Amino acid sequence: MSDFVGMNGAEERFGDTAAQREVRANDRQYVFHSWSAQDAIDPLPIAKGEGVRFWDYDGNEFLDFSSQLVNLSLGHQHPGMVRAIQDQAGRLATIQPAVANDVRSELAKRIVDVSFDGARSVFFTNGGADANEYAIRMARHHTGRNKVLARYRSYHGSTATAITLTGEPRRWANGTLDVGVVHFMGPYLYRSAFYAETPEQETERALAHLEQTIQLEGANTIAAIILETVTGTNGVLVPPPGYLPGVRALCDKYGIVMICDEVMVGFGRIGEWFAYQAFDVKPDLVTFAKGVNSGYVPLGGVVVSDAIHQTFATTPFPGGLTYSGHPLACASGVATFDIYKDEGILERVRDLGERVVAPRLAELAAKHPSVGEVRGAGMIWSLDLVRDRATREPLVPYNAAGEAAAPMAAVVAACKDAGLWPFAHFNRLQLAPPLIISEEDLERGLAIIDAALDVADSYYAGE
Amino acid sequence: MSDFVGMNGAEERFGDTAAQREVRANDRQYVFHSWSAQDAIDPLPIAKGEGVRFWDYDGNEFLDFSSQLVNLSLGHQHPGMVRAIQDQAGRLATIQPAVANDVRSELAKRIVDVSFDGARSVFFTNGGADANEYAIRMARHHTGRNKVLARYRSYHGSTATAITLTGEPRRWANGTLDVGVVHFMGPYLYRSAFYAETPEQETERALAHLEQTIQLEGANTIAAIILETVTGTNGVLVPPPGYLPGVRALCDKYGIVMICDEVMVGFGRIGEWFAYQAFDVKPDLVTFAKGVNSGYVPLGGVVVSDAIHQTFATTPFPGGLTYSGHPLACASGVATFDIYKDEGILERVRDLGERVVAPRLAELAAKHPSVGEVRGAGMIWSLDLVRDRATREPLVPYNAAGEAAAPMAAVVAACKDAGLWPFAHFNRLQLAPPLIISEEDLERGLAIIDAALDVADSYYAGE
Repeated sequence: MSDFVGMNGAEERFGDTAAQREVRANDRQYVFHSWSAQDAIDPLPIAKGEGVRFWDYDGNEFLDFSSQLVNLSLGHQHPGMVRAIQDQAGRLATIQPAVANDVRSELAKRIVDVSFDGARSVFFTNGGADANEYAIRMARHHTGRNKVLARYRSYHGSTATAITLTGEPRRWANGTLDVGVVHFMGPYLYRSAFYAETPEQETERALAHLEQTIQLEGANTIAAIILETVTGTNGVLVPPPGYLPGVRALCDKYGIVMICDEVMVGFGRIGEWFAYQAFDVKPDLVTFAKGVNSGYVPLGGVVVSDAIHQTFATTPFPGGLTYSGHPLACASGVATFDIYKDEGILERVRDLGERVVAPRLAELAAKHPSVGEVRGAGMIWSLDLVRDRATREPLVPYNAAGEAAAPMAAVVAACKDAGLWPFAHFNRLQLAPPLIISEEDLERGLAIIDAALDVADSYYAGE
Repeated sequence: MSDFVGMNGAEERFGDTAAQREVRANDRQYVFHSWSAQDAIDPLPIAKGEGVRFWDYDGNEFLDFSSQLVNLSLGHQHPGMVRAIQDQAGRLATIQPAVANDVRSELAKRIVDVSFDGARSVFFTNGGADANEYAIRMARHHTGRNKVLARYRSYHGSTATAITLTGEPRRWANGTLDVGVVHFMGPYLYRSAFYAETPEQETERALAHLEQTIQLEGANTIAAIILETVTGTNGVLVPPPGYLPGVRALCDKYGIVMICDEVMVGFGRIGEWFAYQAFDVKPDLVTFAKGVNSGYVPLGGVVVSDAIHQTFATTPFPGGLTYSGHPLACASGVATFDIYKDEGILERVRDLGERVVAPRLAELAAKHPSVGEVRGAGMIWSLDLVRDRATREPLVPYNAAGEAAAPMAAVVAACKDAGLWPFAHFNRLQLAPPLIISEEDLERGLAIIDAALDVADSYYAGE
């Protein structure tokens, strides 16, 4: 085997203004960007990525506290990942889903092996949105019911069913594309919809609300409840004790399929293979993407319980895609398992999360009045920023844009100016660095956030 | 740069029954397959792929007349493709869609450069289904209308909107997931829905039917008409002269967006960059996947007209995905353009299609009574097999399964036993070999089909 891995000549591109101009000009002329008003953006041309950092063509360095879109768990250009892709490209880049393939079989086995007791198989997709589409489809056919309950303050992807499941503004302009979806409130003690004052109360009342919703919608019309095990972009909402087991109990009581969307938190983001493993619960279907291979090749999927697998034992599953179980993608997934083991990724995420991030963020909360609440686990955290701790008024209004969003824009700019690429959403400064980040880089990033919070404090209006 | 490309040790795997057993066992235990009753399948473990051939672990060789799922235009393990992936993996495997990236910009430019006059930009997706999802979304927002007209005998993908657009049985079990979709009849002279006897009549009547549908559905409620430029899986239905320009004229007359789905026929399948270029028509949106990079890395997208691009100039496009414009995928797309040019792919597809395939299939039709009609262009063809040429009764009923499908199963088995992997659907034996296929291999495959048609003839019941 060759030792070909890197050919990163990116340093030579620093200062190459001609290349920079061409990338930018072609981007502005020819690339249609996600979620954007095309004339309102000026995407930064990126010349290089390595580990937890990336650089523009002027050589400006960014410490990535967002893992790109919370996918780059192993950082840029991990040699083990690069080699796995190069090797598989040289062996067999692609093969149709209707045959059996060694790396596809191997990755499915490894995923099932670290999944819940009763997990049977994996249906591979290209990403998280279609993973959720197909999980819902399985639940509907398994139960013979059509309705799906999803939470507000959630993101489940952008294809028709996935965007309708989504419980935040990215859905609004799309209307209801899948008429079977109903939204309900989840637990969020800091801004409780249930007037709760303790986690126990929040759990109890959130479950009562869910059961009432089930009863009022008609239990025997509901195929599935889908939820992010730990809500990601919409606030890093960690479920309070007892909530997920309570949802499980309601699903069992009413014959409803429980779907955990682990697209953002699966594969080690909170220090477990799957986040549900930290909350004493066994789902029926689990969707994943991002962390399964750090997004090096588009890949997602659904972990399927044996009971649901059996529904499609003799009746065909009515769904599929050309690139299901794509070998290049699966090879990078297999490598992910090897690297996680070799580098003790899960252990280090738990260790650094508990020993470094949690106490340091507690210090920041004590120091900065604008930090209303700190939430998170492992390598995903949120600082819920406020104008007033007493009223808990968010630093910027929900879904603010333009002038109304200026305070958060200033916080984000302070981070970027200091060389940190943050993961910000609405009134929250969130942290989701690659799982391989060193303690030193963590401290460096947290120091930049500390300074940026001075900017947030400048908008503070409380006492 | 290293010369690392191949490390294909697959020959060593021939006869490795332990490996074969493991791949098969893990597949059967852990992999959930597309469109299948999981216990009814026994996917063949594949050990190697090279050019237009692939092999199982026993060393059995298959000449691929299906290009996997009509995606593998450049064949297996094309050195230029493998190298492009290996190089990009070593440079920068992935980067988020919100920044500018050199290969993403470059591929978008190259695609627009070979697109219709008035094409402006490319929105990249992971595959064909989401390309269609987002094209429909663009059309709805551009027009402010919700309804979409799609044809029967079509396949547009399997996510919620895409499967509802689909006009064949794969939709049936899924019901109507997107309530805005309406189906209409397209031209298909051999089994005309319009009692037509000439192509001119079929065109005229199919357009009258479409206009009547538009009027009865309400022109000002219709956002888009979507159609496969040349219908792929559902029969290789080549539009009769004047049909597509007629659809264009109706779209112009009623302010409807025209979407050409070129997921299967885009990028050279009929010897043009895009198939619409052979039919004197300019669409507003074009969806693609498969051929853009032969499926070496999951990739799809939408080519966007300037008028529609401008709709999202100052208003955000409400859709997106983590892997939009994935660098590893885009690098293989750029390589595709280089290889097409270096190897004269478009020219050879036109040449071999006209000079070799068309006359040889005409011979087969003359020789075998079961061949009711031959249709196609370039490197995609269909033999519409019948029990009776007079009645045109299909060799097997529409959507036949089990015993009713036995005649086609026998034809397919005859192909596979002789070492040819065909592209069969319902009563049709279709041909879609890689575009790089040699004349010799084409002849070899056609000879196998010739023999397999003897099996089809054995079911012939006509005079």
